[in-house]
Amino acid sequence: MKRRTYLNHRLILKVLAALVGVTGVSMLMAVAVGFFYKDSGTMPLLESALICIAASGFLRIVTGRRTRGQQDFQRREGFITVTFSWIIVSAFGALPFILHGCIPSYTDAFFEAMSGFTTTGATILNDVESLPKSLLFWRSLTHWMGGIGIVVFCLAILPIMGIGGSQLFAAEATGPTKDKIHPRIAGTAKRLCLIYISLTVAQMILLLFGGLDLFDAVCHSFSTIATGGFSTKNDSVMSFSPYLQYVCLIFMILAGVNFSLYYFAIMRKFERIKENTEIRFYLAYIIFGALVLGFLLNTFIKDSALEANFRHAGFMLVSVLTTTGFVSTDYSAWIPSAQFILFITLFVGACAGSTTGGIKISRHAILFKNMVMAFRQLIHPRAIFLLRFNGRDVPHEIIVRTLAFFFLYITVFIFGSVIVSVCGYDIITAMSVVASSLDNAGPAFGQICATCSYAEFTPFVKWFLSFLMLIGRLELFTVLVIFAPAFWKR
Amino acid sequence: MKRRTYLNHRLILKVLAALVGVTGVSMLMAVAVGFFYKDSGTMPLLESALICIAASGFLRIVTGRRTRGQQDFQRREGFITVTFSWIIVSAFGALPFILHGCIPSYTDAFFEAMSGFTTTGATILNDVESLPKSLLFWRSLTHWMGGIGIVVFCLAILPIMGIGGSQLFAAEATGPTKDKIHPRIAGTAKRLCLIYISLTVAQMILLLFGGLDLFDAVCHSFSTIATGGFSTKNDSVMSFSPYLQYVCLIFMILAGVNFSLYYFAIMRKFERIKENTEIRFYLAYIIFGALVLGFLLNTFIKDSALEANFRHAGFMLVSVLTTTGFVSTDYSAWIPSAQFILFITLFVGACAGSTTGGIKISRHAILFKNMVMAFRQLIHPRAIFLLRFNGRDVPHEIIVRTLAFFFLYITVFIFGSVIVSVCGYDIITAMSVVASSLDNAGPAFGQICATCSYAEFTPFVKWFLSFLMLIGRLELFTVLVIFAPAFWKR
Repeated sequence: MKRRTYLNHRLILKVLAALVGVTGVSMLMAVAVGFFYKDSGTMPLLESALICIAASGFLRIVTGRRTRGQQDFQRREGFITVTFSWIIVSAFGALPFILHGCIPSYTDAFFEAMSGFTTTGATILNDVESLPKSLLFWRSLTHWMGGIGIVVFCLAILPIMGIGGSQLFAAEATGPTKDKIHPRIAGTAKRLCLIYISLTVAQMILLLFGGLDLFDAVCHSFSTIATGGFSTKNDSVMSFSPYLQYVCLIFMILAGVNFSLYYFAIMRKFERIKENTEIRFYLAYIIFGALVLGFLLNTFIKDSALEANFRHAGFMLVSVLTTTGFVSTDYSAWIPSAQFILFITLFVGACAGSTTGGIKISRHAILFKNMVMAFRQLIHPRAIFLLRFNGRDVPHEIIVRTLAFFFLYITVFIFGSVIVSVCGYDIITAMSVVASSLDNAGPAFGQICATCSYAEFTPFVKWFLSFLMLIGRLELFTVLVIFAPAFWKR
Repeated sequence: MKRRTYLNHRLILKVLAALVGVTGVSMLMAVAVGFFYKDSGTMPLLESALICIAASGFLRIVTGRRTRGQQDFQRREGFITVTFSWIIVSAFGALPFILHGCIPSYTDAFFEAMSGFTTTGATILNDVESLPKSLLFWRSLTHWMGGIGIVVFCLAILPIMGIGGSQLFAAEATGPTKDKIHPRIAGTAKRLCLIYISLTVAQMILLLFGGLDLFDAVCHSFSTIATGGFSTKNDSVMSFSPYLQYVCLIFMILAGVNFSLYYFAIMRKFERIKENTEIRFYLAYIIFGALVLGFLLNTFIKDSALEANFRHAGFMLVSVLTTTGFVSTDYSAWIPSAQFILFITLFVGACAGSTTGGIKISRHAILFKNMVMAFRQLIHPRAIFLLRFNGRDVPHEIIVRTLAFFFLYITVFIFGSVIVSVCGYDIITAMSVVASSLDNAGPAFGQICATCSYAEFTPFVKWFLSFLMLIGRLELFTVLVIFAPAFWKR
């Protein structure tokens, strides 16, 4: 088939229309919750659902029913579709907050929805508990949809599209292209969804067992497995019992694992898990980081018991590492060095192919191994060293592409921090909200304390942080390439 | 000739003995200054000089006169010699401060000497002006010796030794191996020294012309051309006239240029200068950075005139970029965003093959071009792109080695910041003193204000920062490879 040189707007709009439709239908789930609890969120959610479904139908009619033969996506259309799908879903997902009136400003509502769908978990709500249960459910649901969306996108759709940064891991690290989970996208996506749902249900049951009511158990399971971070409580999970916190901790760790490993485990392909380098780095970071952090807290903060110190150290480290953002204790009261370790963890991220955001452990592992190789090269200048990762040799092109991502990430972080600090915020606040948004984590430092919201930021900063959440979620290149003039030339 | 498998300690000691001797002889220059001004530094300097010369002679006798045939250095011996030469020179260079009594603690004296020889310019002296002129001269002289030392080391010795990180630029960027300035080390070193001395004398004359007395003109020229930063005044160059500040500004920029470009200019090889990518990135950063910073200062700090704002913006940016560390205004009073830009500049550095420290513009240029290439690759997936730098194609191995350096630098910075913050300092202070020491710059933020000294840090932190200055000066790998167990295996 001949390659088209024009953009097929109709094709793009068709996909966006479908996504708006899905958003509308999922709002109906929240409507059901609203009916059950007879709360004030029911009508706004119903209206929003109808608006979404109507908009979806309208777009479908406008774009027509033809073009069966043209259904092949081209790369450029892929970039545009993916970027705008996250934007349009957030734009419509903000409606219930506006129609209900609990978030009167559209800037704030969009921020909240984008934070939800990108599984960031930063909120502009100062009093979360004042919201009706149906809207709280909707917030958690945006996480849950965004979480599975990114897993399917990264492990099933991106490798097919052959797209940059994420392709790196699809192609080299987790292996779904060379050794596909399932040859067809639909099959892969279905299997990933099943794993996702199983994890969510498992956590829910364990939370119920610990005495949490059904509603909170569902919402927190959604938030955990999506590594989002929205809670139904003002103090996040601070007032949870140690048992409940441990359950969240364990499921955050599980959600940060590459989902293809679960598939391999089910298929009893244990050699694929054994040769996975990333999971070892991931667990090593958690164990080592939690020990150091726990030791610091135990030495310098003497008012807590040993168990509590290590629990909070592990919980906060994992919460930031997996880009979840639950808060088990007021970390803003920690000593600077402990806060600094959390801040640095914002730049680590968990495994590729999980619901987490950020740079990802696999990239760090490649960069780290490359650094070690440089030392060995220096000692044995004539030897030839190969970088092994996940049981394969990593060619230079992959290292160079990983470098491009890493450097771009740091560049965006620095420019972002300058922009936010020019808006009148101190350096720590600026750096941490930018890092936290890019990383899709949520927690920040400085003026943003452990339980503070993002409400006080200027509208410009809120839009800017929403943008950072978007590009962070889609691994930078996918979105930023659209801004390159060469992208539009043919 | 057969390769030796043992370390030739005698050879290493011989070189170190020679360097201690040179240190002693150069102290005699400071003694002469002391005689002229009849100050209290004369005797301590004379005693130190004699100790150095005696130690040097003793080492020479101990190591014997034989081994003419064994004079070939092996790589391992190169790493050890280079590392220990900076340490031993600082250890002896600290003596005059101790013997005079102006710096009673050896930790502090060593810090001051290491800061001098590595051209960092961080001081533990709260009252610089209380020192006798001969000791002030000695401080500036340590800069000047360290500055030419590193240029000769990087442009003449390293390429011959074939050593890692710096070799990158020697081999690929500035070209002295493939297109040597002069085939023999001695010749190259002599030419570099001539350029160095010419720049120093030119600045000195211009400073004298601006009304500075001879002593201050010499000391500040030494500090500027070595991109060191020690001043003879407590408030650095704050009280200098705008003319004098502009002279320092221009010579800082000149000192940040790759010294082989001056050689090319003298030889009228202008095509080599024209194809130099690094200098364009360097000037672009200065112009763009100074404009943004000047604009910020002019908008938010209204008590200064337009000229003063832009002068201070340009001066401080260049001072940090070239890792000099002169201070023309109290930048700790600037708005956070302006301070943040200075902080980020600590990670940039000037041109390779200059007296400056840090990551260096050339590495950033390669990383930046690699990032741009990744975007182009995404748009044209089947095209093959080559990274051009200084008129040559850069192979993947060089990009990967640049990456290793960059990642190692960031890793050391992060671990260093954690260590300093654990010692009880806030995050901004910890991050900035670590970045400043690694970068051999000097200025810091947070608890270390524009004119504050490093006196208040604990001895452990001072030793640690001295270590960071050393590894920063020698481009990390050269020193850190010694800590690898494989380095000692044969």
